[in-house]
Amino acid sequence: MNDSVDEALVVLSGGQDSTTCLYWAIDRFGEDCVSSVTFDYGQRHRIELDCARRIAAEAGVSNVCLPIDTFAALGGDALTDASIAVGEAAGTGTELPATFVAGRNLIFLTFAAAYAYRHDIRHLVTGVAQTDYSGYPDCREETMAALQNAIRLGMDSDVEIHTPLMHRSKKETVELAVRLGALDAMALTHTCYNGQQPPCGRCAACELRAKGFAAAGVPDPLLDAQ
Amino acid sequence: MNDSVDEALVVLSGGQDSTTCLYWAIDRFGEDCVSSVTFDYGQRHRIELDCARRIAAEAGVSNVCLPIDTFAALGGDALTDASIAVGEAAGTGTELPATFVAGRNLIFLTFAAAYAYRHDIRHLVTGVAQTDYSGYPDCREETMAALQNAIRLGMDSDVEIHTPLMHRSKKETVELAVRLGALDAMALTHTCYNGQQPPCGRCAACELRAKGFAAAGVPDPLLDAQ
Repeated sequence: MNDSVDEALVVLSGGQDSTTCLYWAIDRFGEDCVSSVTFDYGQRHRIELDCARRIAAEAGVSNVCLPIDTFAALGGDALTDASIAVGEAAGTGTELPATFVAGRNLIFLTFAAAYAYRHDIRHLVTGVAQTDYSGYPDCREETMAALQNAIRLGMDSDVEIHTPLMHRSKKETVELAVRLGALDAMALTHTCYNGQQPPCGRCAACELRAKGFAAAGVPDPLLDAQ
Repeated sequence: MNDSVDEALVVLSGGQDSTTCLYWAIDRFGEDCVSSVTFDYGQRHRIELDCARRIAAEAGVSNVCLPIDTFAALGGDALTDASIAVGEAAGTGTELPATFVAGRNLIFLTFAAAYAYRHDIRHLVTGVAQTDYSGYPDCREETMAALQNAIRLGMDSDVEIHTPLMHRSKKETVELAVRLGALDAMALTHTCYNGQQPPCGRCAACELRAKGFAAAGVPDPLLDAQ
């Protein structure tokens, strides 16, 4: 055991779930042992990157932003079809950005693991959950277990992937955030599929978020902040 | 079973091993069912990208080049240390580029799998081998098996990762290349750690390559081509 084994890196998207995970990590590992990484993968809502930075600052932890230009190339087939510029790939109208690709969380966590490896950080924390997102195979518990195994073998490491929200509903995630004192940071998060601030309140993401706060009996600080 | 299940995507680096794998895939799946992907991850020897393109053309298969800007950011810590420009990270003096990160093959294959998923390609082919590279944990057979499992779960797919060179020595790889008619393409490959063309002949990569050809009793077409 060396000093570094209890450091944790949180994959912070700027949303409600990863913000809750950041406070979970601080609670478990201590503020001084937690850092965060955010991926700039060409997401449509650039505001997420600002949110992540502000949330990390609010929580008192560092935030590294790593670029990934591959999703845009994969998503739009821009490299195989010269008529499509990488930046022009059409949006889907859902929370999935134009650059969504299968297994995106595999990439995020593998890059996070590579960063963690280099910085002697053993623990990775991600906000994936199979409760409300069962349609996403890269959010499932068994996928995370398999990925942890692949990363351990591939990097010869004892990295541990933590998924504190895996089996929590949105209501339970809000309750966890309250317990962890994460509500102030929650006012800085971004959820709206339409990228609006204040949030549109009508899209599926806004509705899901509102439902979670209502079920927990807690006012959403993001709305209070407006 | 649909028409697409027997298509294969080869991760083509422009080197001897992946070129042999390209011909292995053509032999197994047929030229019309094989395509190749090359990653532009900021490698020091840009010549590799040209080699890959020329080798694919020689073999009569398509070649897609996908960018990955993340390794440079990870490798040089350029994003956490403003004094280091991404392009300036120091080289290591070995075959590892300045941008080498742990588990790089995990990333290559996961992106290849994402591309394959989008194009209904089931088979991935990579030139990793544990025979001559036992020091690289992300080249081992058990790592590849674990990664295949993680990708299958994460993408809900039945992708298959093929590693035809896994247990072959350099000599055996040369013999395989001869059997597969890959020698003409071998003249287009790039191996030299020093990025020289004609190859320096003195670096560890040139020496390993020369040893393999000598042991197989085959003249290296790359040297003949000079």
